[in-house]
Amino acid sequence: MASTISVNSPADFHVHLRQGSLAALVTPHVKMGGFDLAYVMPNLKPPITTTAQAIEYKQELEKIDSSVEYLMTLYLSPDLTPDEIRKAKKAGVCGVKSYPRGVTTNSDGGIESYETYYPIFEVMEEVEMVLNLHGENTHVLNAEPKFLPHLLKLHATFPKLRIVLEHATTRAAVEAVKSCGPTVACTITAHHLALTVDDWAGQSWNFCKPVAKYPDDRSALREVILEGHPRFFLGSDSAPHLPHTKSTSTPMQGCAAGIYTSPILLPLVAHLLESFGALDKLEGFVSSFGRAFYRQAVTSDHPSKVVLRRPSAGSSLVDNKYALGEDSVVPFWAGREIGWEIATA
Amino acid sequence: MASTISVNSPADFHVHLRQGSLAALVTPHVKMGGFDLAYVMPNLKPPITTTAQAIEYKQELEKIDSSVEYLMTLYLSPDLTPDEIRKAKKAGVCGVKSYPRGVTTNSDGGIESYETYYPIFEVMEEVEMVLNLHGENTHVLNAEPKFLPHLLKLHATFPKLRIVLEHATTRAAVEAVKSCGPTVACTITAHHLALTVDDWAGQSWNFCKPVAKYPDDRSALREVILEGHPRFFLGSDSAPHLPHTKSTSTPMQGCAAGIYTSPILLPLVAHLLESFGALDKLEGFVSSFGRAFYRQAVTSDHPSKVVLRRPSAGSSLVDNKYALGEDSVVPFWAGREIGWEIATA
Repeated sequence: MASTISVNSPADFHVHLRQGSLAALVTPHVKMGGFDLAYVMPNLKPPITTTAQAIEYKQELEKIDSSVEYLMTLYLSPDLTPDEIRKAKKAGVCGVKSYPRGVTTNSDGGIESYETYYPIFEVMEEVEMVLNLHGENTHVLNAEPKFLPHLLKLHATFPKLRIVLEHATTRAAVEAVKSCGPTVACTITAHHLALTVDDWAGQSWNFCKPVAKYPDDRSALREVILEGHPRFFLGSDSAPHLPHTKSTSTPMQGCAAGIYTSPILLPLVAHLLESFGALDKLEGFVSSFGRAFYRQAVTSDHPSKVVLRRPSAGSSLVDNKYALGEDSVVPFWAGREIGWEIATA
Repeated sequence: MASTISVNSPADFHVHLRQGSLAALVTPHVKMGGFDLAYVMPNLKPPITTTAQAIEYKQELEKIDSSVEYLMTLYLSPDLTPDEIRKAKKAGVCGVKSYPRGVTTNSDGGIESYETYYPIFEVMEEVEMVLNLHGENTHVLNAEPKFLPHLLKLHATFPKLRIVLEHATTRAAVEAVKSCGPTVACTITAHHLALTVDDWAGQSWNFCKPVAKYPDDRSALREVILEGHPRFFLGSDSAPHLPHTKSTSTPMQGCAAGIYTSPILLPLVAHLLESFGALDKLEGFVSSFGRAFYRQAVTSDHPSKVVLRRPSAGSSLVDNKYALGEDSVVPFWAGREIGWEIATA
């Protein structure tokens, strides 16, 4: 049994870093969790819909922690034009994120029909930007399967457009992505490798969108990682929310959807992969597969090798919270044991 | 459109009245909600496992509100003997409730295998006591369908034993009960006529066991009521919990499972039945069907006729909470509008 693992420049291809004081708290957690690259979601208030906003946001994040590479995205909305796509590409923006209307945090401006956006997708295909899909429709449990025909149609219409189905949670999604060509990939979160529906029933800290599904769905996610499939890689969807929005609901207001994994991400993923015998797939899953799909080779600017080791006590406890000023966030698995820790940051 | 409805002596065939100060708060809500009869669940701390406990508990409830008829039940456990069943029957105890181990509030002492209890069921069949099944197994979403083979086997083994599958939530359960003979019935709660899985995802106030399922499952519950099927009747499963246990969770402790409907029960059921065109089935669903199955004819001790009317403002608002001393409870649909109110109590 290995006692250390070395991972080449881990990359998280789906993360929420928020803005303002919350960004100041959570952005350094990317590095703390072992990651050199963060693919940053655009669902701020207001959403990041222009190149100028994306550049400004990137600067804000670099000011907080310059040791991480931030890949920026735009929020797909009717305001987006083909010209703006070209401008974004030139400025280094990597992708465009599409949210169905209203299904998750700050998605009220999400989209209702994809056909409207075909002129945008044509230009994205041409300039080689990536389309990131939050694939959910209708109700929480069939939302993802119901969305898959949209994915398949988009892929058929724009076969060269690189598309990522984000945070897959079902066997149906895994099979749909597998059935597509090399331009379609899929991110998987850490928490969906751990949870099933019973874990969030009545337990708001484990509630996120998409919700964790059945044991067989979780098995499908694990199996595709075990298989070492190169189009399936980590996107943590790490999503910080202030504790009172996670822990408390009223009859009129439910709790916030989102699970926060950034500060413990690499040790957590190693722990989970080890639990189903896939530890040897760690580097592919957290670094090389995603980097290959996104064409993000490790550069000399960020040449890191992160070493995980077994904690001397056998396991280390996840912190109960992280705080900065008046803000705090509680990580996934707070107070629980993880069998790996970062040896060098 | 009728402006009043008269219902003959409503009977709630599944209700949790708790003990101590919480019982003092919630027991009068049975009458407030329009009901004359309460079939009382035995999952107290400790559970009601003997005739003596059941009698004592009934006296406690009658002291709080003597205007309601309380039908008492025992908690199925290894302590229960055939002799105790005979004794219970003589003392007027109506049924025995079986909880699978650990699936809901105070069910740690629940059962794991039915065969052990066959000697008990034989005597229950002989003395005509009713077996009340909380039918859930394994995980929250397939729990009820997974349980149905147990129901069918029990019915085949004890065809004369009256069995009630409590709080059905799935089309599979409705169909299983329909397929059984006249000794098998099924209760349906008010809240499962309103909710689906999306309503409790991230909203702990709508979380109960069994959880509300898919829209098609809710349709099945509504359809069997519309049909006027006499073996499907109201058991509210009204379950009070103190607000902090419903509204707050920690990473280590989820929220309590249960929805509280007693104080608004009859108007709520009328409102819901009207919403799917089944208002003419109200009396069957809330009174005559359950009374016939349980052989609880309206007696001269409790000869009530409850009249519902349309509120003068068109609807009435559900109270935000009910309090007594230091305890309080928040009803289902707090602050929402209901199209019926009780004219005479």
